[in-house]
Amino acid sequence: MKKLEQLYEGKAKKVYATEDPDVVIVDYKDDATAFNGVKKGTIVGKGVINNRMTNHVFQLFEKEGIPTHFIEELSDRETAVKKVQIVPLEVIVRNVAAGSFSKRMGVEEGKELLCPILEFSYKNDDLGDPFINDDYALALGLATQEEIDTIKAYTKKVNEIMKAYFLQADMKLIDFKIEFGKDSAGKIILADEVSPDTCRLWDVHTNEKLDKDRFRRDLGNVEDAYNEVFKRLGIE
Amino acid sequence: MKKLEQLYEGKAKKVYATEDPDVVIVDYKDDATAFNGVKKGTIVGKGVINNRMTNHVFQLFEKEGIPTHFIEELSDRETAVKKVQIVPLEVIVRNVAAGSFSKRMGVEEGKELLCPILEFSYKNDDLGDPFINDDYALALGLATQEEIDTIKAYTKKVNEIMKAYFLQADMKLIDFKIEFGKDSAGKIILADEVSPDTCRLWDVHTNEKLDKDRFRRDLGNVEDAYNEVFKRLGIE
Repeated sequence: MKKLEQLYEGKAKKVYATEDPDVVIVDYKDDATAFNGVKKGTIVGKGVINNRMTNHVFQLFEKEGIPTHFIEELSDRETAVKKVQIVPLEVIVRNVAAGSFSKRMGVEEGKELLCPILEFSYKNDDLGDPFINDDYALALGLATQEEIDTIKAYTKKVNEIMKAYFLQADMKLIDFKIEFGKDSAGKIILADEVSPDTCRLWDVHTNEKLDKDRFRRDLGNVEDAYNEVFKRLGIE
Repeated sequence: MKKLEQLYEGKAKKVYATEDPDVVIVDYKDDATAFNGVKKGTIVGKGVINNRMTNHVFQLFEKEGIPTHFIEELSDRETAVKKVQIVPLEVIVRNVAAGSFSKRMGVEEGKELLCPILEFSYKNDDLGDPFINDDYALALGLATQEEIDTIKAYTKKVNEIMKAYFLQADMKLIDFKIEFGKDSAGKIILADEVSPDTCRLWDVHTNEKLDKDRFRRDLGNVEDAYNEVFKRLGIE
């Protein structure tokens, strides 16, 4: 599989065309951003960890019947994935109050919620990825009811799989963000990544933060946290 | 029916106890506020219009099978209503983009939406009534799934009734806010008010604003707009 022209450079990844129009190569960078790009930095080795962790987790999902864009890991930082048209929704699941939710809702960080929250943000940098509900997605033509139903069903299953997966590695899944795309046949499949960039993970005993909040909040030992997650998961 | 002690004074109404523990008297004021109380003023005659308009509309709803807190109009400004425990959700319906929605979503004011949007805000002045979704309401214990389903079903019917009702008076219902409460038996019933304070109403031909946006945005002729709505509706 050969990289052709660069199609896109995002905050944490570059995407390249290949000879197959339905396949692209994702190249994970060490660049880190927060607060919609206002804070910038580097987390050395992050690209490798996020690439390999995402691929590992996506293969778990596939085994459980959740279709993903994963095709083949090409190198430590590069993966061949199905080309998709991204659904412009950030899909967020919250098991425990944290971050912007805690601030907006006046709920102490760390408080267990009565039930998991699934929410959508409209992926739009100019608008700051505003929080929306299902009706907004329909009324603005961002997704159909059928697509929303599929995305919600997959996301709930993803949450159950990930909670158990991280717990066996002594980590609590506080919240996470995923994205979906439509493949060339219009089928909804999981895309993007699952990593300490996109999941809040706390040590189950000490509540130590092992995720991007260490970067966002200048908590120090950012690289150590990413390495610790990777080590605990025992990904070969 | 006699007013006993004042139980509560809100931005636009006072509420009094009566000899019946299940009945309270609402007294509509001319006070107007906007932006969560930051802007304050008076709209002369508003209390009378909002009281009489709400009662008229609530009786329409009752005929269509939507239970409300309305019991009896006592005077131009006073109405006896069932005492309820307010569900801490502001229920907002949007037929056309306007106001905060337009700003947040980058959608031009006046744009027809592909379908009506129903959304919830958490009624909490300290937090600024934040926008939430159904899962938030469940996860924070603000309402049960059954209550949410009932509220949504009533609200959709209310929107259909009101759209037709205002249209025959040459007004377009852009959006509105309603609130529900639980009566002494725990039954969900419509409470609060329906008025130019809580509905955006535009002249169907000229798009002239005939609602509280005239006050919010210093457009002038505020009293005239409230009187015009009242006159068009022909409430006796």
